[in-house]
Amino acid sequence: MSRQIRKSGIHTIDWHLPALSSSGSAHHISTELFVLTYGALVSDLCKEYSNDEEINHRLETMGYNIGVRLIEDFLARSCVEKCQSYQETTDVIAKVAFKMYLGVTPSVTSSSPAGDEFSLLLDSNPLEDFIEELPEGHSSLLYSNLLCGILRGALQTVRLAAHVELIQNGGKGEKKTEIRLSFLGRLEENLPKSED
Amino acid sequence: MSRQIRKSGIHTIDWHLPALSSSGSAHHISTELFVLTYGALVSDLCKEYSNDEEINHRLETMGYNIGVRLIEDFLARSCVEKCQSYQETTDVIAKVAFKMYLGVTPSVTSSSPAGDEFSLLLDSNPLEDFIEELPEGHSSLLYSNLLCGILRGALQTVRLAAHVELIQNGGKGEKKTEIRLSFLGRLEENLPKSED
Repeated sequence: MSRQIRKSGIHTIDWHLPALSSSGSAHHISTELFVLTYGALVSDLCKEYSNDEEINHRLETMGYNIGVRLIEDFLARSCVEKCQSYQETTDVIAKVAFKMYLGVTPSVTSSSPAGDEFSLLLDSNPLEDFIEELPEGHSSLLYSNLLCGILRGALQTVRLAAHVELIQNGGKGEKKTEIRLSFLGRLEENLPKSED
Repeated sequence: MSRQIRKSGIHTIDWHLPALSSSGSAHHISTELFVLTYGALVSDLCKEYSNDEEINHRLETMGYNIGVRLIEDFLARSCVEKCQSYQETTDVIAKVAFKMYLGVTPSVTSSSPAGDEFSLLLDSNPLEDFIEELPEGHSSLLYSNLLCGILRGALQTVRLAAHVELIQNGGKGEKKTEIRLSFLGRLEENLPKSED
């Protein structure tokens, strides 16, 4: 399907990630339903692929394709002005975007002096809040890797190349989800929007 | 994994569908994120299976496993008393459960005289609201079949056997999502909780 999209141009709408309309926000979806549905998605990938690297890659790619769509909704609803610096973009991601979509505000830590690299630390990650442990045989699974893909896809759509990596899974206990984001620079033109 | 659970008894917690805690409700997950994540899940199944029947079956089974967990959350949060009749159960499903989890209230139509069969008609189905059309080559896909599974799993956990079927996909235009539910009777004992 993504191949079809690439062939036919970047503006073709991928059926399964449709344009979002403002009416969507009129509904209230429960967090529990979302958390369990995401769990079912990860579980399905664990059945489909034996290798954690492949699963992590699939989650990231799915997230990327979601991010490409979600950014339109974000720009429309957040009324955020164009960011003028990495620092500003970082703030918008942590304080506006995470709050809007996941209902949590991560702390920004370990920033590089130039501000082009930082970590997002989630005290509470709704996706992982109820996960006791990773499934047997999947110790390298990056459970919330979808979030990294979403960030990369959303940033790429506003022409910001970024490398986004899940450094640590969260879950019960002391562990906090840590996402490391490095800005790689501005992109001159739009790139193909969907990935396989 | 499910096989392991069956071996070790019905109360073992499946890693990917963890017990939900009330803290989950403290977060607010956006509908857009949920709709796109569900889209990614369906899309992944379309890549994994060529046959729509298999995809529909997978969605239903995933839903079943979700429903088995969600019912605990529902009973804890809704404070609904034990239903005394099919009619009462029908009302709780349509007016309380759908509202709580999807933010919509379906109409109950085409009820059988005995009240043991009815249709849920969703004027607006968040999962399908933005779906223009089914993916090419997947004309028999039951996009929201997860919902049928959730209903079956939740009802089975409170010892009500039910057959739940997606009669019609919703989407843009006049079409409304229609779910047909038939109560099959009370179950004498708990059945294994997870399905493959």
